[in-house]
Amino acid sequence: MCCAIPLALAEPTDRSYFLNLKSNALLEFYLFDNTVNPDDSALNLERGFLFGDGFFTTGLIVQGDFLHLKLHLKRLADSAHKLGFKSFDLAKLKSRLEPLCERSTNACIRITISRRQSQRGYRIPSEEQVTVVIQLSPLPGIPDFDCELLFASTPISVNSFLAGLKHLNRLDNVLAASEVSEVYQESLLCDGETVICGSRTNLFIHQAGQWFTPTLDKAGIHGITRLRLITALRAANIPIEERNLDKKTVLNCEAAFVTNSLLGIWPVCKIENKALATDLVEQLQSQLNFVR
Amino acid sequence: MCCAIPLALAEPTDRSYFLNLKSNALLEFYLFDNTVNPDDSALNLERGFLFGDGFFTTGLIVQGDFLHLKLHLKRLADSAHKLGFKSFDLAKLKSRLEPLCERSTNACIRITISRRQSQRGYRIPSEEQVTVVIQLSPLPGIPDFDCELLFASTPISVNSFLAGLKHLNRLDNVLAASEVSEVYQESLLCDGETVICGSRTNLFIHQAGQWFTPTLDKAGIHGITRLRLITALRAANIPIEERNLDKKTVLNCEAAFVTNSLLGIWPVCKIENKALATDLVEQLQSQLNFVR
Repeated sequence: MCCAIPLALAEPTDRSYFLNLKSNALLEFYLFDNTVNPDDSALNLERGFLFGDGFFTTGLIVQGDFLHLKLHLKRLADSAHKLGFKSFDLAKLKSRLEPLCERSTNACIRITISRRQSQRGYRIPSEEQVTVVIQLSPLPGIPDFDCELLFASTPISVNSFLAGLKHLNRLDNVLAASEVSEVYQESLLCDGETVICGSRTNLFIHQAGQWFTPTLDKAGIHGITRLRLITALRAANIPIEERNLDKKTVLNCEAAFVTNSLLGIWPVCKIENKALATDLVEQLQSQLNFVR
Repeated sequence: MCCAIPLALAEPTDRSYFLNLKSNALLEFYLFDNTVNPDDSALNLERGFLFGDGFFTTGLIVQGDFLHLKLHLKRLADSAHKLGFKSFDLAKLKSRLEPLCERSTNACIRITISRRQSQRGYRIPSEEQVTVVIQLSPLPGIPDFDCELLFASTPISVNSFLAGLKHLNRLDNVLAASEVSEVYQESLLCDGETVICGSRTNLFIHQAGQWFTPTLDKAGIHGITRLRLITALRAANIPIEERNLDKKTVLNCEAAFVTNSLLGIWPVCKIENKALATDLVEQLQSQLNFVR
C-alpha cells in the first residue's frame, strides 16, 4: 500500500526504505529505524519536525570515502549523549554507511537524527525511538572566487548548554544565510558586538601576527574543519587561539577565512566595505597542505 | 502507489491527504499544500525538519468551536511575516479549518507551518513553497491538583529577533520539560538569574500586592492565554506589569500561576522547596471568570 522500496544496500528489511526523489538537487534518500508506515506519517511523528528535537552532520563522500568519518561519528555520538538520545545506535549507523559510501563515489552527505513523538507535548517520551535519515546530494563545487563577508542583522541564539552542537534549531542560520547576496556570499552571526561564526561556516582571523577563532561556549557550532584546522595549526607550531572577538577586531584584521566541511578553507577578500589581502591565507594553505 | 487517501473534508484534491495514525494518542492527521508525492519523501524535504524552519500554534476545539481562533491566526500571520514566509495563505488555512472544527467536536489542535527544501543549504529557496500540517489529538484533561515548579537546569535560548515567536526551535523546551518529575510538574526556563517562562507555560506571580509576568523581549513565547489574561486584568483594573523577574523574586512571591491554551490558569502551590498558598489565584479566577 505504501511507497516503500526495500533498501538495496546492506540487508534489506521491512524497516528499510529507499525512495527516489523528484528534485534534481537530491540524488537519494535513506531512512531507517523508525520509518513511514502505511498508516501513519513521517512528518507529524518526528520530533525533529515538531520541536527541532534532533541533530545532524554534513560531510563529503569522495571516491567512495566518507572524509573524516570518525570525526563525524564522534560529533553525532557527542550530540546524542548531550541531548539524551539514549537509543541512538552508532555501530548500526556505521554499518549502514559503509556500503552506501562504496556505492556513492562522490556526494555530499547529511545524516539527521531525530526522535519519534508517541505522546503530546515537549517532554521526551519514556519509550524513546530514534530515527536516522541519510540524504545524499551532488558533490558541491568549490567557489573559484574569494569570500565577501557581511555582519548579519539576525542575532545568534545564545544557549550555553546547546552551544557547539549541530542541533536542528537553526532558524538563526536560516535567516542569516538569507541575508547574503550576490555581493556578499556569507554573513557573520553575532551576539551583540561579539562575532561568533558565519551562517554556514566557522571564522578565523589573523591579527597582530597571530591566528584567532571565536570562542564557542555560548553559541555557534564546533565545526569539524575548524577542529581539524586547529589541530593542524598546532602540529605545525603556528599559534592559534580561541578568543572572544568583537566586530571592531574582526573588521580590523589582517586576513581572514571561513571554513566548513564542504568548502574547506575559503579565503575572505572583503568584510563589509573593507578589502582584505588573501596572501596570508594562501600562504597558510600551502604551508599546511590543508584540503577539505 | 502511495498511502494517500483523499481528504474527506473540504473539496478533495490530489494534493490533500488524510492519514490514519497507529498511535492512540493522535486521532487524525491532515497535510495540505506541499504533500508527500509517491516518489519523494515528506521528511527530508521539509525545512521544518532539516533546520526547524517554521512555526506553530496549539489550541483547543471545544464543541466544534476553535477557541480564540482569531488570536491563533494572528499569531501564525505574525510569525509568517517575521520569518519571511511570503507564500503562507492564511485565508486558505482558515477555510480548511472551518469544516474540520465542525466535525471534530472536541480536540487539541496543532497547526505547523514549514517550508520545503528545493536546494541544499540553510538559505530560504527563492521559490518558496509552504507546507501546512494540522494535527488533532484528544482533548487533554485539566489537572485536578496544583502545580509544583522547579527551576530548570537547561538554560533558555536567547535571541531578541526570535523572542516571542512559537517557532520550531524548541530544544530548550524539550530538555526543560524533560526535567519535570512526579514531584515537579513544570520547570521554569531562565536566562542566568532571570526567569522567563515555564517549559510549556507562561508565568505570573503576585508580589507586593501586584501581579507581574516576565518580559519576553529576549526569549520565551508570547502565549495566547498570557495575552488574554493581561487584557482581562487590565479590563478589570487589576494592575499587571511585564518586568524582568529574577529567581529570588520568584521564590519570594506571594502567589503564582502558569498559563497556556490547554491548561488555562494553573495555580502554583510550590516553587522548589517553598510552599505557596493558592487562594489569591483562586480569587483572581473567580473575579475574572477566566476560562481556557
